[in-house]
Amino acid sequence: MTPQRVTLITLGVDDLKRSRAFYEAWGWQVASAQDGVVFFQMLGAVLGLFGRDDLAADQGRPGTALGTGAMTLAQNFATKAEVDAAFACALAAGARELKAPREVFWGGYSGYFADPDGHVWELAMNPFWPLAEDGSLTLPVAG
Amino acid sequence: MTPQRVTLITLGVDDLKRSRAFYEAWGWQVASAQDGVVFFQMLGAVLGLFGRDDLAADQGRPGTALGTGAMTLAQNFATKAEVDAAFACALAAGARELKAPREVFWGGYSGYFADPDGHVWELAMNPFWPLAEDGSLTLPVAG
Repeated sequence: MTPQRVTLITLGVDDLKRSRAFYEAWGWQVASAQDGVVFFQMLGAVLGLFGRDDLAADQGRPGTALGTGAMTLAQNFATKAEVDAAFACALAAGARELKAPREVFWGGYSGYFADPDGHVWELAMNPFWPLAEDGSLTLPVAG
Repeated sequence: MTPQRVTLITLGVDDLKRSRAFYEAWGWQVASAQDGVVFFQMLGAVLGLFGRDDLAADQGRPGTALGTGAMTLAQNFATKAEVDAAFACALAAGARELKAPREVFWGGYSGYFADPDGHVWELAMNPFWPLAEDGSLTLPVAG
């Protein structure tokens, strides 16, 4: 057994300064930065930036060339306008557009971009997934 | 600007049944499963499993072979014993050990494993990062 939680997401990056600058330009504020790692506080969890090679070594496989993975980090929003605004800010901060925000088949609105290291973010509005006031997401009980 | 949050983490997987079985064997309970996607509720956020090819298509780059990325999803615990127990459960569920839990240079205790698709998890105890009672993590104010 293990609790159903992720308390820390660590992104391996090629250039810590460049990556930090991207997230700051996107609007994130650094909580702490030391010893080659940068941390951002999220809602009850933390996002970290760490050198790609350092991450491979820390994972117990030094020298492994870690790539861009089959994974998306998503931010949900209450409205399309918020998706558009945050997406525009990401592009302005240097993100690479993968898919401009648009209406999607499942009834919502979603766009994708890649950060400077290729890590993929989705910004979405899902009308079936209302957010709490603090921005947290709790799945509705299946009806 | 954008809020500092991740509300949904989506892992691209080769075999949804295999991946779901792994997370269930590790102790996670499915909140909903439909249309080729499986969702787990976390603390104010959601973990999703989605076909690797479907994820590439959804990201606006159909046909792209998404790999295993330079990213770690971590669970923090209050004690070494909890790390060991959750790590043992992950291995029993079919995870591949990358680094057995051990004392690490930054003063904590940490181990890494890969899930059936190579997505990397870290289980750690960081004595400088106390968890809230609900398991959430808020960085201490820099002293």
